[in-house]
Amino acid sequence: MTPPIIALIGRPDSGKTTLLEKLIPELSGRGLRIGTVKHHVHGFEMDREGKDTWRHKRAGARVVALSSPSGLGVIRDVDHDHGIGELIDRYYHDVDLVIAEGYKRTALPKIEIFRSTAHQEPLSHRDNTWVAMVSDRVGEWDLPTFKLNDITGLADFIITRFMARTSRPKATLLADGTPVPLNDFVETFLRQAVQGMVTSLKGCREAREITITIRNDPNRSGE
Amino acid sequence: MTPPIIALIGRPDSGKTTLLEKLIPELSGRGLRIGTVKHHVHGFEMDREGKDTWRHKRAGARVVALSSPSGLGVIRDVDHDHGIGELIDRYYHDVDLVIAEGYKRTALPKIEIFRSTAHQEPLSHRDNTWVAMVSDRVGEWDLPTFKLNDITGLADFIITRFMARTSRPKATLLADGTPVPLNDFVETFLRQAVQGMVTSLKGCREAREITITIRNDPNRSGE
Repeated sequence: MTPPIIALIGRPDSGKTTLLEKLIPELSGRGLRIGTVKHHVHGFEMDREGKDTWRHKRAGARVVALSSPSGLGVIRDVDHDHGIGELIDRYYHDVDLVIAEGYKRTALPKIEIFRSTAHQEPLSHRDNTWVAMVSDRVGEWDLPTFKLNDITGLADFIITRFMARTSRPKATLLADGTPVPLNDFVETFLRQAVQGMVTSLKGCREAREITITIRNDPNRSGE
Repeated sequence: MTPPIIALIGRPDSGKTTLLEKLIPELSGRGLRIGTVKHHVHGFEMDREGKDTWRHKRAGARVVALSSPSGLGVIRDVDHDHGIGELIDRYYHDVDLVIAEGYKRTALPKIEIFRSTAHQEPLSHRDNTWVAMVSDRVGEWDLPTFKLNDITGLADFIITRFMARTSRPKATLLADGTPVPLNDFVETFLRQAVQGMVTSLKGCREAREITITIRNDPNRSGE
């Protein structure tokens, strides 16, 4: 099941990360496993300078990972800017809700934070993907608006609006990492066929998620 | 195709990371895409303090990602210590060779670095998973031994020994993230069945890697 995704947007320094620092614990405290995504257009720095994995990466490793009993970090080179859907399909199978910071030029449902002490106007081009505002001003927009410190109200809204979706089994298909669009017929066919194939294998009957990966002829000259 | 994996081992401060800083560019320069893995038993620190993703994680996000056109980093909580096989199956589909730093208590083929200026003895318990030594001493072990600065010799050895494997198509199956053992019959059956199912779908016929994920009833109360 792909988790629902919402985008938290706002002008630079409008307080997106500060709001997330309050919203994530509130939602986590209600039993939701939260994932976040941040998009960076320029450069890429995530690892700590001087750490072994940082040294591996700087030496030219394409993928580095740090694995521990409690945490796992994987940093990799990519050859294209990943769409939010591709990221979610690949990496967010174990969360209930994803909050994307930024991603304002997508069709994701958007919550905008606007502080009148920081900016004169909220973002322009507000369209029907905006679902709520978070602001020190209220009553100015034809949208549900939450005060900056009304974290419980905002969490209630998010849960009511996004977490009540009917969940149904779902199949996703990636070809070389790119999602392949599936109509309902094909999706159902793939799901039932795969479930039928693996149901008698150890550990598969009760599994919530089954992943099969087929790798063909990794002929490097073809690249 | 799962890439071959070798473990680079040695006592603390034997120079594993310094050797990797030379070996990775040498192997990359020969056209190989290298991945590395490092295991940490205690604690977990990867992101840069103060960065937005670091703040998301500290606030309780289970998964955080930083995505850019050139790089992608994903840091997550995990509920078990991932085996090397699980990591490789999930995250290293786009590399040709994985070098694990540490992982000496596994059945991986091992290259040990031993500097007599740092330690009196190499690791004990040397067994038949050891395939080579890298040392300032040579001729002391019944194994191919490379001098510390003989990076080209070591790279030649690794390529000859590990990169000539016959590649064949392969199916892997994960149930809730855990690899399910497949005998040859089941693996071939799964592979051919999946290939047959998706071959007429857009982008699938020429794909090197096909991944299908089935998610069932994400009933949170069952956790």
